[in-house]
Amino acid sequence: MSTDADNPPSNGASQAGHIRLTSHAGSAGALPVTWGAATPAERGPIVGTTASRAQRNVIGTHSGSYSVYRALAVAAGALSRDHRADLTNTAPTVTIGPHPQWSDPRAIVSLDPWGAMIAEAFASEITSGVDIRPTIAVTKAHVTVPEVSDAIAQGRLVPDGRILLASGAAVVTKVAIEPVWYLPGIADRFGCTDTELRRVLFEETGGMFPELVTRPDLEVFLPPIGGQTVYIFGRAADLAEPTVELTARVHDECNGSDVFGSDICTCRPYLTHAIEECIRGTQRGGAGVVAYSRKEGRALGEVTKFLVYNARKRQEGGDTADRYFARTECVAGVQDMRFQELMPDVLHWLGIRRIHRLVSMSNLKYDAITGSGIEVGERVNIPEELIPLDARVEIDAKMAAGYFTPGAVPDAQQLKQVKGRGWADD
Amino acid sequence: MSTDADNPPSNGASQAGHIRLTSHAGSAGALPVTWGAATPAERGPIVGTTASRAQRNVIGTHSGSYSVYRALAVAAGALSRDHRADLTNTAPTVTIGPHPQWSDPRAIVSLDPWGAMIAEAFASEITSGVDIRPTIAVTKAHVTVPEVSDAIAQGRLVPDGRILLASGAAVVTKVAIEPVWYLPGIADRFGCTDTELRRVLFEETGGMFPELVTRPDLEVFLPPIGGQTVYIFGRAADLAEPTVELTARVHDECNGSDVFGSDICTCRPYLTHAIEECIRGTQRGGAGVVAYSRKEGRALGEVTKFLVYNARKRQEGGDTADRYFARTECVAGVQDMRFQELMPDVLHWLGIRRIHRLVSMSNLKYDAITGSGIEVGERVNIPEELIPLDARVEIDAKMAAGYFTPGAVPDAQQLKQVKGRGWADD
Repeated sequence: MSTDADNPPSNGASQAGHIRLTSHAGSAGALPVTWGAATPAERGPIVGTTASRAQRNVIGTHSGSYSVYRALAVAAGALSRDHRADLTNTAPTVTIGPHPQWSDPRAIVSLDPWGAMIAEAFASEITSGVDIRPTIAVTKAHVTVPEVSDAIAQGRLVPDGRILLASGAAVVTKVAIEPVWYLPGIADRFGCTDTELRRVLFEETGGMFPELVTRPDLEVFLPPIGGQTVYIFGRAADLAEPTVELTARVHDECNGSDVFGSDICTCRPYLTHAIEECIRGTQRGGAGVVAYSRKEGRALGEVTKFLVYNARKRQEGGDTADRYFARTECVAGVQDMRFQELMPDVLHWLGIRRIHRLVSMSNLKYDAITGSGIEVGERVNIPEELIPLDARVEIDAKMAAGYFTPGAVPDAQQLKQVKGRGWADD
Repeated sequence: MSTDADNPPSNGASQAGHIRLTSHAGSAGALPVTWGAATPAERGPIVGTTASRAQRNVIGTHSGSYSVYRALAVAAGALSRDHRADLTNTAPTVTIGPHPQWSDPRAIVSLDPWGAMIAEAFASEITSGVDIRPTIAVTKAHVTVPEVSDAIAQGRLVPDGRILLASGAAVVTKVAIEPVWYLPGIADRFGCTDTELRRVLFEETGGMFPELVTRPDLEVFLPPIGGQTVYIFGRAADLAEPTVELTARVHDECNGSDVFGSDICTCRPYLTHAIEECIRGTQRGGAGVVAYSRKEGRALGEVTKFLVYNARKRQEGGDTADRYFARTECVAGVQDMRFQELMPDVLHWLGIRRIHRLVSMSNLKYDAITGSGIEVGERVNIPEELIPLDARVEIDAKMAAGYFTPGAVPDAQQLKQVKGRGWADD
């Protein structure tokens, strides 16, 4: 079955037993969204509920990719489709913002700045029965990372009983953020038109969400992708103070290293090094932030990543730094799909204007952050002794490609010589 | 705009500038899929390419939720929509299967058993130009977990130079698996009809993939959700040998604990305990497997999880074990959305018929595994000394709810007394 978007059938009613393949513009009851407006009243709430179609003012629904599990729960009869969340006692443990960046429609396009404070921001709408859900949650935690305990044992970190406890636990505020995309702003970031973006998103996902093309009036999309988590060391309000020393890392998920400690890359060592730097910086009177994004394998996914590992290890001449990026491009068509263009949004949401110490060697991240108007002081890279055995190939390839290093950049001849373990070496 | 699925417009052509909102049945060129057939030739390949519509025989596309990033890459002009993956040297490092379970259409419904071996299984189709991509990738790795190094230092583990190296690294085979859902089989697992499942999946995601309802002839769906990763200790072929001692854990993602070591739950301690047990079991001549699923926060997502933490900590009387599950249900409408019903598929894919030592206290997992026909010998739970400070609430609530423990189950009075840290205690 095929439908011409320019010639919609006339029957727009929703009835029991009748499936609507797409919705139509101008349904009564949906509140308007004016992205980047100065106040929540002018901006309007993001309403992604599936319980009341008439209230919806976005494409897609809440919880990113977990919306599919929610649907499964309804299909299995475990969840009522009309369930309304009881949000008693769920409010943030600390207030973040509003910051001036929240009302700049170009500063933030991939999350809803008001997503954590819906209870206050949209109190009247909620009272009048609109099903508004938080897209951001703020809580606190004690995080205990074995590498931090090692740093204490080795005297690099000293517990202070407040930021770092004697147990080795660091006291943090943590924030979970779901993706909320303002489509015209996303298109702007990537240099295409809103219409092109919508069409490609629809077609290249195999036909996900026809409303992307049939509802240009709906400007907000809740994509079914993973979100991000922010770990804040020290006072959240200090992040917005350019005079307070800020240590920061933006980290992209690498499950194989972050959780399982695979030695082919530097992801977990970089992350734990950043946590150590954040703790130390906060103890000096500063603040720290680690933003963790679900972008496994440069957002290519783990199947592609593992295919690339095999191609690297088996290529003629072995796994050398000079061909590190080429192998990914052969398999995936691009070297990287993380799109750091969207990454700075979370920093703007936190009110950050200056990062004193950026724990990262990535030029893509650095360029995206500074290009978005945030100043970066020092760049802090990973100490040599933390680089795992088989990860030299990655690190040298990245340095040669322009990633930051305070030391010497390997030349073409050296890159050929930096070789990882072969599959026959185990 | 709205379309009645029963009255499709007649124009089914795809033209430049013309957007097809959904496809139609019987397009020439698409190969049939007969799920659970005995041979790949009879089963047919899974074709989720977006480069050639005529070849597609599924709903959705590859890479789970990362398909959205791929679309973004095309919109940004970074990736050609016609890119065909060069799969040279990407083949699995070890052959897994085929196992008898692969041709039982009820044993496996959420992954494609032939997904790792498309090059051999569908060689002629690939030669004839069909764009078939792997949905499973098999590679190998050295994984270094600080807790394993601690176990070596404490004498609980001894490196053998083959399974566990002196460096503390464990030598593993690892497998990334994308979700591939056979919809009639998924419906069967959840006790609903295929038609109901499709409709609810479409409506409760806010209108994702109209083909779910317009194309009942397409029985396979590649959902935009996270997949799973399998870590194998020892020989992969041994997993299918019921006489070889098998240690196993099925672990659901908990980023806050798995990566950041939050002390409110036992997720990372359970995982690293399982890795330790797998290493020891393999050294005894057995094999081990850890299957890691991207089902953050019981598949409710991390925003919901953090909201629940706040509700637990702030409720009257504090965070007590007797009200652990109730708080999740208030916010989310269910206690859990992980649907362990689908989890055993990966075990069947590995050919597993008997797990000698299951490292898990979850009755949901145990029931799903044994209910699917896999025998479980001993159940191994987490040693008391590994339970983090604030996680007593979770553990006691789970034991009282019927989770496995070899020790005493706390009664109602005791559950009221087990209390976690309050938000004012930091």
